[in-house]
Amino acid sequence: MKARLITLEGGEGAGKSTAVATVRDWLKAQGRTFTETREPGGTPPAERIRALLLDPETGDLEPLTELLLMFAARAENLRQVIRPALARGEDVICDRFTDASMAYQGYGRQLGPAPVETLAGLVHPDLEPALTLLLDVPVSVGMARVGRRSDQRDRFEQNTVAFLERVRQGYLEQARKHPERYLVIDASQPLEQVTQAIRQGLAERLS
Amino acid sequence: MKARLITLEGGEGAGKSTAVATVRDWLKAQGRTFTETREPGGTPPAERIRALLLDPETGDLEPLTELLLMFAARAENLRQVIRPALARGEDVICDRFTDASMAYQGYGRQLGPAPVETLAGLVHPDLEPALTLLLDVPVSVGMARVGRRSDQRDRFEQNTVAFLERVRQGYLEQARKHPERYLVIDASQPLEQVTQAIRQGLAERLS
Ligand SMILES: Nc1ncnc2c1ncn2[C@@H]1O[C@H](COP(=O)(O)OP(=O)(O)OP(=O)(O)O)[C@@H](O)[C@H]1O
Ligand SMILES: Nc1ncnc2c1ncn2[C@@H]1O[C@H](COP(=O)(O)OP(=O)(O)OP(=O)(O)O)[C@@H](O)[C@H]1O
Ligand SMILES: [Mg+2]
Ligand SMILES: [Mg+2]
Repeated sequence: MKARLITLEGGEGAGKSTAVATVRDWLKAQGRTFTETREPGGTPPAERIRALLLDPETGDLEPLTELLLMFAARAENLRQVIRPALARGEDVICDRFTDASMAYQGYGRQLGPAPVETLAGLVHPDLEPALTLLLDVPVSVGMARVGRRSDQRDRFEQNTVAFLERVRQGYLEQARKHPERYLVIDASQPLEQVTQAIRQGLAERLS
Repeated sequence: MKARLITLEGGEGAGKSTAVATVRDWLKAQGRTFTETREPGGTPPAERIRALLLDPETGDLEPLTELLLMFAARAENLRQVIRPALARGEDVICDRFTDASMAYQGYGRQLGPAPVETLAGLVHPDLEPALTLLLDVPVSVGMARVGRRSDQRDRFEQNTVAFLERVRQGYLEQARKHPERYLVIDASQPLEQVTQAIRQGLAERLS
């Protein structure tokens, strides 16, 4: 079976990292080997770029700088982690990928889709996720979940509600454009139902 | 008079930073106001990106990551420093610019010209230096000058001679392609003669 890149997307506190466990368990039950990673990050230099991106001390960044940093980290993760794993025949679970750059920098920061597409064409012209799970949740619900977690908000969690609304709409727009690749999960449901919806979606799309 | 972007280029220890003073004095004598900057860097977040790029602890980076980080810093410097200064009517002296990305990542790291051109088209489609001073020096001479300076070599100074040879040839190739923009200075000469050659070149090109 062809190795697959499975990505998890959604706004702050939507439940992406929680969903990784559900995908992992499902792949295990299918007898698949897989690699887990996250973006921005996944390799030591990419995690340094992540730290720079999330650190509130970094302050305001030009939106185009933010986008270029995201793709700088992605280029590392692709060459060091994602492509080698796929080449070994393993599936890859990635917590955020290029769709996050489209939603956050393209829509949230209002750069528009063109620069994101240009950079995707430069960094991974040949690769697209086989499946993208979008955990969709109203901004207020996601913020409440993140708020519960800690008082130390990162650069993205500090954004305005209007920004996070644009991010959400950006994700939903991409899901409408790519229905064959996207699986939209209503992540405002209780965790048990979210988990059930993910399992069912994986069975339909990847079995 | 139209404000001009003047860039200084060359390999390690060629004398770029030394030449900034010569350009500064010449512009002052002409009664021009100007802004000085350097790349990668020039703004607080861009200097953080510079630190990441130069720090030997960062270790190996994918060449494409290195290139994207250079342009991430450049996008900051352009929007925060270079473009505002030009808009105020000031000349800008910049110690390294996109030609350095072409020489180091395009030729040195052997990414080729295409990704550098793609990123230049994304980050500054409308702007090119009015004059590029290339301080050309044999690799061994530049390395000896840098070696004198300190025992702590940065990530780029640690590169092989073959890498630095490709960088030098990359610069010379660009100078051949853009003779109207480039001024090539034989920087192996004693400092006094280099300074004299720069002054003469500035007078011919920018008076
Ligand atoms: N369906 C759910 N109902 C209620 N709480 C949930 C649900 N899913 C996740 N949570 C909780 O919400 C918080 C955020 O979840 P998680 O870290 O998985 O989100 P995330 O999308 O990865 O967030 P981030 O954008 O910060 O990475 C956690 O405390 C998690 O336990
Ligand atoms: N023409 C010259 N002859 C001899 N020494 C020189 C000459 N020009 C510069 N130097 C010396 O060489 C060293 C490197 O010069 P400088 O820092 O200007 O180079 P650079 O190109 O900016 O280097 P880097 O690539 O590290 O930024 C300094 O010690 C400087 O004083
Ligand atoms: Mg998470
Ligand atoms: Mg210098």
